[in-house]
Amino acid sequence: MYHVDGDLVAREDATVSVEDRGFRYGDAAFETMRVYGGTVFEWERHLARLRRTCETLGMPDAVPGDLAARVSETLAANDLREAYCRVSVTRGVQPGKLTPDPEVDPTVVVVVRELPVGGVGGGKSWTDPAVVRSVETRRVPDACLPADAKTHNYLNGILARVELRRAAAEGDGRVADEALMRDTEGFVAEGASSNLFFVDDGTLHTPAAGDLLPGVTREVVLELAAEESFPVEEGRYTVGEVRGADEVFLTNSTWELRPVASVDGVITSDGPITNLLTRLYEGRVEARCY
Amino acid sequence: MYHVDGDLVAREDATVSVEDRGFRYGDAAFETMRVYGGTVFEWERHLARLRRTCETLGMPDAVPGDLAARVSETLAANDLREAYCRVSVTRGVQPGKLTPDPEVDPTVVVVVRELPVGGVGGGKSWTDPAVVRSVETRRVPDACLPADAKTHNYLNGILARVELRRAAAEGDGRVADEALMRDTEGFVAEGASSNLFFVDDGTLHTPAAGDLLPGVTREVVLELAAEESFPVEEGRYTVGEVRGADEVFLTNSTWELRPVASVDGVITSDGPITNLLTRLYEGRVEARCY
Repeated sequence: MYHVDGDLVAREDATVSVEDRGFRYGDAAFETMRVYGGTVFEWERHLARLRRTCETLGMPDAVPGDLAARVSETLAANDLREAYCRVSVTRGVQPGKLTPDPEVDPTVVVVVRELPVGGVGGGKSWTDPAVVRSVETRRVPDACLPADAKTHNYLNGILARVELRRAAAEGDGRVADEALMRDTEGFVAEGASSNLFFVDDGTLHTPAAGDLLPGVTREVVLELAAEESFPVEEGRYTVGEVRGADEVFLTNSTWELRPVASVDGVITSDGPITNLLTRLYEGRVEARCY
Repeated sequence: MYHVDGDLVAREDATVSVEDRGFRYGDAAFETMRVYGGTVFEWERHLARLRRTCETLGMPDAVPGDLAARVSETLAANDLREAYCRVSVTRGVQPGKLTPDPEVDPTVVVVVRELPVGGVGGGKSWTDPAVVRSVETRRVPDACLPADAKTHNYLNGILARVELRRAAAEGDGRVADEALMRDTEGFVAEGASSNLFFVDDGTLHTPAAGDLLPGVTREVVLELAAEESFPVEEGRYTVGEVRGADEVFLTNSTWELRPVASVDGVITSDGPITNLLTRLYEGRVEARCY
């Protein structure tokens, strides 16, 4: 069962109008969240970003007041306590004009699917460390689409992933797990659906906010590192610096922290800092949700 | 009646799954076409670009072989001979992963609505010359999303149009008709849903292909100008050059040529070259479609 426009509906009946601006233009905000033990992890941050994205899109009041209830109903209807949850808020049906009408009747969609139990001793949504490959598709600049808006305009990341498919066809057939995207100046920005961290000489590095979506998991990892007084640097890095790092990992809500096995074929690995941050993350999930 | 996934359906039943990648990610190609007297104007060019866009998105075989028949059926079902027609081809339902599956079962949607009769002595889809305002939102660079791909990722143009709404609220309340977007280097690119031309000292100017979608109407206008041996220059221009031009007009399939009344409040006008090109365009429509 999914939740569409205020109602629980069977998955096969979960549809939107072809005149919905979410379909016509990708004119919609979304969040991907992780549910542990029936509790949405970092709900307040996800909700705040969803509201910020809607504000950026010029529909500041589009997020419904009962969104938490809709999520809970969807989880309950599917008897799920360990789940992936995707919430979308579109500008709704507004036939005809590209310029949006300020009067918005948003379409709200909640989609869930099962994931492993998390927290201390829990499982992961991935099986192996990620194979990463840098791509030519550049990350859309903040001046074109505000970087911290999470929207249904996701072709930039998809084209990056399509490059991985092409590279695999020309290479050994193995499609990499994540595409490493650079900004238009050539500095490392992020993965198609993840943020990147690396460790060098004991310092944790991650690309500074700018032309990248600063994810909720990225924020939590930076907080955990600060609590442990790890040296942290947010900066501008080349792909070469990432390839030569001691440890590399990716973050997003579904993967949590995912170690990187190789970047452009150069073997990297997890290591003490990745492992410690993973345990701290699992500890926070355990404390907040179980 | 609309045409969805192979069938004619009533408009209120025209829907797509919330798991369709066209909805989730704007992962879809589209074309907007003009139908005159039952004939799609410049069908071959639109079809070729739709195929190119699908190729760019990594789904080269997604455009169905019977697309022309689907368009004809939709027009006939609505008893329309003068129409706007929008065709969308999405990557279809592929649950779960951001990386697209190479096996594609596309969703194809055809939407039509009535427009005035065109050609010689015909009407226009617009009532007044366009009020144009330059905006801060920059046009997404070709390096991030190939510029000649026409996709459902349309937020860049929508954010430009939202700026017009905000400017109107802070100004005289009049929302401009089109947003003039610059590339990331600050040169004029295009409107949110149109290409721009201007005339200065008898020469027709338009921004060179690069970080803009070179529209079918733009191509036709350039051909008509070449047939008349008008001096034409495709170049890089500042907003100041456009504001100071003798004549300014916009082009897209629905508007055809639309004169510009003002740019950032500076009065421009139509004039002999805009008027002549408009008559030539109407003549081509007449010759090809009526």
